[in-house]
Amino acid sequence: MELDQRPGRETGGPAPRRRGRPGYDLEAVLRVAVEVFNERGYDGASMEDLSRRLGIAKSGIYHHVAGKEELLRMALDRALDGLWEAADRAQCLDAPAIVRLERLVRDAVGVLDARLPYVTLLLRVRGNTATERAALKRRRAFDALVASLVEEAERDGDIRTDIDPKLTARLLFGTVNSLVEWYRPAAPGAANPVSATALADAVCAIAFDGLRVRPY
Amino acid sequence: MELDQRPGRETGGPAPRRRGRPGYDLEAVLRVAVEVFNERGYDGASMEDLSRRLGIAKSGIYHHVAGKEELLRMALDRALDGLWEAADRAQCLDAPAIVRLERLVRDAVGVLDARLPYVTLLLRVRGNTATERAALKRRRAFDALVASLVEEAERDGDIRTDIDPKLTARLLFGTVNSLVEWYRPAAPGAANPVSATALADAVCAIAFDGLRVRPY
Repeated sequence: MELDQRPGRETGGPAPRRRGRPGYDLEAVLRVAVEVFNERGYDGASMEDLSRRLGIAKSGIYHHVAGKEELLRMALDRALDGLWEAADRAQCLDAPAIVRLERLVRDAVGVLDARLPYVTLLLRVRGNTATERAALKRRRAFDALVASLVEEAERDGDIRTDIDPKLTARLLFGTVNSLVEWYRPAAPGAANPVSATALADAVCAIAFDGLRVRPY
Repeated sequence: MELDQRPGRETGGPAPRRRGRPGYDLEAVLRVAVEVFNERGYDGASMEDLSRRLGIAKSGIYHHVAGKEELLRMALDRALDGLWEAADRAQCLDAPAIVRLERLVRDAVGVLDARLPYVTLLLRVRGNTATERAALKRRRAFDALVASLVEEAERDGDIRTDIDPKLTARLLFGTVNSLVEWYRPAAPGAANPVSATALADAVCAIAFDGLRVRPY
């Protein structure tokens, strides 16, 4: 995996794999599927709904994927791959745990900005299918990594030790994840009242100025 | 309204209004309705579902309420009344804005603990019905109050001014609201791995040690 060492936001998903008919590549089908899943819930969305929204026959969707659950898996992977790439970038930094943790929080906001519908879907997953349970497992592993970074930063004496590291990790990413409730990335060219960078700055400023142990 | 000046959590909803048949008072019907709404979504839950879950005929439910939307309204009011009572308590304090704000965050965690299913339902409301739009309006007014407390605390020089007050308010309550995703109050008598008080302490410690402007 190529490791992008730029600070701040990540810039998007993998390039679309074009293997469909002209006008409907897999990427377009996936994008619309996630829209419909987020609107109706995965369980409530049918291939019929997708076909209607895309304006193509169901066979046009089956040309790309075996079924609804494959679309779900691809969508959840889009979110989880983004988060894990951010985790890999953070872990590769030759820096104390608190710096890696802050970088991870910052980049997670970037993933949320670049892949908002996918992350929104991920956060709603409750484990009703094998695909959802696999996604929850990857998500729990990510949460465990965050908690271990918090633990390490506590041992380094860089953040407060009066809160359980798992709870700190949950509150940190609770704040990040809560952004899906109201944050909407700007359309290309449009002015955005809050940029993803300003958002990451604010989250880190509030969270870390509280987390850091500072001498009085 | 009686103003409870105790710090920390609030202790529950209003006493159940008993006007139903023996064994099924309105409170029990409401409790089960909220369970079913949270599981299936309000739109996906039918009076049939409620009647099955309660093990009584639909007429037994209509004995208490005019219909599903009245149950929704009562459930959302249960959450919103709790939050607004907390806001009133905070506003009655003869203290600087930062103290009132911290008190409100703390008490909101208490409301979430005491009325978790109701707050969970409130946070999922998207405005599909008149009842939902009325609830969103009350919720937006609450958010505006939080933002105005943040603004006042900024003017007092008590919290950082480099983040827009509305954004600070959103991140603060984003953190509080994210608790519904994982926090489960202990059953009576059971040991709770995280108490609501510890939770409120942690949220305030992380958020406010970052928000407070401290001399270096």
